[in-house]
Amino acid sequence: MVGIAVLGCGRIGRMHAQNIASHPRASLAGVFDVNRAAAEDVANKLDAKVYESAEAVLASTDVDAVLIATSTPTHADLLEQAVAASKPVLCEKPIDLSLERVNACAKAIAGSDIPIMLGFVRRFDPGHRAVRDAVRAGDIGDLHQVVITSRDPGMPPVSYAEASGGIFRDMTIHDFDMARFILDEEVTEVFATGSRLVDPPLMKRLNDYDTVSVILKTASGKQCIINNSRQAVYGYDQRVEALGTAGMASSENRRPNMMTLHRADFTGRGAPLLNFFINRYVEAFTAEIGAFVDAVETGAAPEVGFEDGRQALILAEAAIVSAAQGRSVKISEIG
Amino acid sequence: MVGIAVLGCGRIGRMHAQNIASHPRASLAGVFDVNRAAAEDVANKLDAKVYESAEAVLASTDVDAVLIATSTPTHADLLEQAVAASKPVLCEKPIDLSLERVNACAKAIAGSDIPIMLGFVRRFDPGHRAVRDAVRAGDIGDLHQVVITSRDPGMPPVSYAEASGGIFRDMTIHDFDMARFILDEEVTEVFATGSRLVDPPLMKRLNDYDTVSVILKTASGKQCIINNSRQAVYGYDQRVEALGTAGMASSENRRPNMMTLHRADFTGRGAPLLNFFINRYVEAFTAEIGAFVDAVETGAAPEVGFEDGRQALILAEAAIVSAAQGRSVKISEIG
Amino acid sequence: MVGIAVLGCGRIGRMHAQNIASHPRASLAGVFDVNRAAAEDVANKLDAKVYESAEAVLASTDVDAVLIATSTPTHADLLEQAVAASKPVLCEKPIDLSLERVNACAKAIAGSDIPIMLGFVRRFDPGHRAVRDAVRAGDIGDLHQVVITSRDPGMPPVSYAEASGGIFRDMTIHDFDMARFILDEEVTEVFATGSRLVDPPLMKRLNDYDTVSVILKTASGKQCIINNSRQAVYGYDQRVEALGTAGMASSENRRPNMMTLHRADFTGRGAPLLNFFINRYVEAFTAEIGAFVDAVETGAAPEVGFEDGRQALILAEAAIVSAAQGRSVKISEIG
Amino acid sequence: MVGIAVLGCGRIGRMHAQNIASHPRASLAGVFDVNRAAAEDVANKLDAKVYESAEAVLASTDVDAVLIATSTPTHADLLEQAVAASKPVLCEKPIDLSLERVNACAKAIAGSDIPIMLGFVRRFDPGHRAVRDAVRAGDIGDLHQVVITSRDPGMPPVSYAEASGGIFRDMTIHDFDMARFILDEEVTEVFATGSRLVDPPLMKRLNDYDTVSVILKTASGKQCIINNSRQAVYGYDQRVEALGTAGMASSENRRPNMMTLHRADFTGRGAPLLNFFINRYVEAFTAEIGAFVDAVETGAAPEVGFEDGRQALILAEAAIVSAAQGRSVKISEIG
Repeated sequence: MVGIAVLGCGRIGRMHAQNIASHPRASLAGVFDVNRAAAEDVANKLDAKVYESAEAVLASTDVDAVLIATSTPTHADLLEQAVAASKPVLCEKPIDLSLERVNACAKAIAGSDIPIMLGFVRRFDPGHRAVRDAVRAGDIGDLHQVVITSRDPGMPPVSYAEASGGIFRDMTIHDFDMARFILDEEVTEVFATGSRLVDPPLMKRLNDYDTVSVILKTASGKQCIINNSRQAVYGYDQRVEALGTAGMASSENRRPNMMTLHRADFTGRGAPLLNFFINRYVEAFTAEIGAFVDAVETGAAPEVGFEDGRQALILAEAAIVSAAQGRSVKISEIG
Repeated sequence: MVGIAVLGCGRIGRMHAQNIASHPRASLAGVFDVNRAAAEDVANKLDAKVYESAEAVLASTDVDAVLIATSTPTHADLLEQAVAASKPVLCEKPIDLSLERVNACAKAIAGSDIPIMLGFVRRFDPGHRAVRDAVRAGDIGDLHQVVITSRDPGMPPVSYAEASGGIFRDMTIHDFDMARFILDEEVTEVFATGSRLVDPPLMKRLNDYDTVSVILKTASGKQCIINNSRQAVYGYDQRVEALGTAGMASSENRRPNMMTLHRADFTGRGAPLLNFFINRYVEAFTAEIGAFVDAVETGAAPEVGFEDGRQALILAEAAIVSAAQGRSVKISEIG
Repeated sequence: MVGIAVLGCGRIGRMHAQNIASHPRASLAGVFDVNRAAAEDVANKLDAKVYESAEAVLASTDVDAVLIATSTPTHADLLEQAVAASKPVLCEKPIDLSLERVNACAKAIAGSDIPIMLGFVRRFDPGHRAVRDAVRAGDIGDLHQVVITSRDPGMPPVSYAEASGGIFRDMTIHDFDMARFILDEEVTEVFATGSRLVDPPLMKRLNDYDTVSVILKTASGKQCIINNSRQAVYGYDQRVEALGTAGMASSENRRPNMMTLHRADFTGRGAPLLNFFINRYVEAFTAEIGAFVDAVETGAAPEVGFEDGRQALILAEAAIVSAAQGRSVKISEIG
Repeated sequence: MVGIAVLGCGRIGRMHAQNIASHPRASLAGVFDVNRAAAEDVANKLDAKVYESAEAVLASTDVDAVLIATSTPTHADLLEQAVAASKPVLCEKPIDLSLERVNACAKAIAGSDIPIMLGFVRRFDPGHRAVRDAVRAGDIGDLHQVVITSRDPGMPPVSYAEASGGIFRDMTIHDFDMARFILDEEVTEVFATGSRLVDPPLMKRLNDYDTVSVILKTASGKQCIINNSRQAVYGYDQRVEALGTAGMASSENRRPNMMTLHRADFTGRGAPLLNFFINRYVEAFTAEIGAFVDAVETGAAPEVGFEDGRQALILAEAAIVSAAQGRSVKISEIG
């Protein structure tokens, strides 16, 4: 059993705490939140210890590893402290909104062999992973084109949008990682374009977009298209499709049940898409904890690590430049 | 929190014990099995107490309710003892293979208001339940015809087949209950026919069938067709469809992921159907525990009770007579 | 080019006339109808000759073959006359509502080698045929169970219901033929049951049913379940499914287009099922003409012949007895 | 009846001739091809007149309208001649590979009210059109994003690729028109990128691409993503999807039958996608003739006209520049 403490008891921290508590090979070694009431609430429900500070967590011999689910600006500091304390880390994305800070963090932890895992949870979705596995197994031959559809059901709260670093760093970043996961070759060029269609006034105020289309390209010419929208009223639309010389593999949306209603005027699924990420990726979040436990137990590098977090952020930076300048941006131009 | 003890630590008892242990409103109050090693194994994994006997379980004040997952011949005795001890019961189906014993049990517990719930887990499947809910909500108008497809992936072990009471009492019984769940009107006539196609020698020796078709009819003329096979090599095929004056509702099969492979020679799902019942009905088993907890906490009659178990067995008896005599059997002829 | 004359210019005769006229290997050699205006209407549209009588058609050297689409009571007479005139025949089902008349007809034409084809058009549907082909090719191993769902969108006109011979002879007869097509082994037992749910007063007056369920069984124990309803408001529901030792093949419904609408409250096909048989089986009707042309040109026995029409009627007779008596009826009991 | 003559008796000309011959409101008024044998072959099969020259066709009073299906370099000349002869024209795309020539043609025919229709057949596909209709009807609210997937089953013959003007002018041009059809607002910016993955040597020799991704944008910010590949071994992949504020409408692929095979290792459609355009768009080609007949009969401007052909070519030109320069190209930069 690996004792994992959770730093940050917001929505996603609470979910991780529950997953850890019910995981057969992990136990919840404690929780911490700057809002003590939030930490106590989780601790009471899950019969766990509340720590006074992140430092206390990292100093505890009961804690084998930590999961960082605090606010984004604290990720890099906590990650550095955890590595310094020799505690394996599962860090929610992004590492930081600033590539400079991420690069500094990379230097700070350079040389360490403490397992660091990034919370790109979609890699653990059974359907998306089956696409990746089909690609790796050669089931579709040589990969040529990837299409990622990723649409949120609705706009996030304004406060979230204000602090998120913009759609490319906050939302598309998951798709950048998915692209890298499927492509298995580094992206060398990015073209991105954004529109303000869902909430034009807010987007204008934040100099952000709510609807974006992106084309990624690798050195060998593989292409990946990403389309994002902040508003898919039909639900959280999460699809991945890979075309190769021998066929296509696609991961389609999921619903809570497979009831279909056939009436005179339409035939349709009664149940909406699984909505939102905590429901849609419920198995993925559990599998992610399992992969982290593996890494902690074996000391091996996690399947998705710090550098993956850095590379996804680089793609986001390139997309921001591309959308502003209306041209394809080479990754070599960035960081 | 409702403390539930599990009697019987075989495959299904272990699964129930885990579900109880991880249920937010239940705790595992202990386990018992005539095979003490089996009980200890479960207890160790789930940090639960091992009882020396069913009597000790029923006598314990730590135990609020019991789940009976022992071998079928012990169900009725344990159920009577639990009721005598005022412990609410969730009893795996069937109550007994003998309708006489079930009727005797009914008399023994008559007048008690201790909640007794039968383990017809499929009623809690989100898809099947959505069909029932659509029927009740009037989404398909007046119900006319129900079609239940229920096929196991492969033959059960010979030892199971020998003791199960035959396909109608062991397998179709789930579909009889599903029929009653959807129809919302008692069945008055049964026609059933069986064949020996999957394993003719074994079926002949046991005077049993491996492939059956059944037509049920209610007093108002509603029809329900059931088809069963012991061998669907493509997986555990579980579908329910209801036709009414305003449309049709259907509950379709489920897969562990929605990856589709499109190749030159075929387009198909890579993943097989969820297989077997513990995987296919995983959400249903959890919901079943929740419904039992509700009944224990409120003292209300569970949604599926002793009489439902008895009625399903009556339909099985009628099917056995019908298959033997090649005629429609009226329920009034049975028990 | 095979010159085919059409006897009967009602809805289905007109459709056949058009199909013949536009078939690359057939020409419309003329039309006849007791209602001369109906014949002239078709003839004008398709630039064809109007004959004064069926006798004139059969006497004409311009006519290589005839298609009988007149009212049912005239089928057997015209069929006998055509055979006597050495004209190959494509006869709409049923041959006659009376098994005695069909048997007499069989005697009258015995010994002739004039190709006689029965209009069981569903055998030519690409999907249903693909199921049959999969069965014959061994793709599903040894066949065990067939399920045929066949529901009309709505009640036929009262005049049609009054003259049709009842649901088993008029509607289920197509499914009896489909069962024989898929099973590839003669049916030996029939159990059928009927209800009056869609239009109880009319059904009571006609001593007929609008909702029926049927189980067929072959000597080796293969089972076929048929469910029929006169009212599927969601459209003409036509499905066939075959289970075998190596898998299942199913033929699903078709729609005029594959547009799907995804909205907040449902995801569904915008287009209803193809509706009614002239649209649903449009390719099958064309393929049927092609198969008839093949038979005329080669003189070979058509794939679906007189005896297939007789056998389907025998199954209908057995179903009528079964539904009346509530017991399984052996085919050997019938004509 | 509208008498339509077909100029050009290659594969697509022959298909059009057949569709015209069997259309209820059209007749085949004659055919012409520089290869007289090709013209005679079609004429014999369809009982039509062979003309000696295009001039003879245009001079004939038997000819109400012409369909131009000759080689691309002759389209503009024939179109001008037809207009001069006051014959309505249905012209296969593209008008010409050179935008200059198209602009000159536009001048030449300016002021004429002779109906000119462009052969963008996909607009008449029932599924794609249902998406357009859903958009126009407001079923998905305000349109935000369109995704067009358009992949050929395999590389065209080398001779075709050499003369086609490149993938953007030959293949993507259909998608540019589809984008305009769905968007209902002119495109103002194009970003395109191409790769050489299917046949790199050939593509390098022709300075062409076999795999392209394109993003179109309108003045209001609507986005359209197009992905093309010359090689989808699983069949002719033709999908259109439109996202709006109230939902999504999508047009999915079609198969010749709906048979599904369920086996131990996979569940899949036995039948490949309809393949190639003559099969996939069979209904669309027929509907296109119908729309042309409407235009000829009423004299009204066809739904898809000369200017639509010119605009699609402008988008192709913009894509060529964009792919070469790695930047977004404004339509105002092009002709």
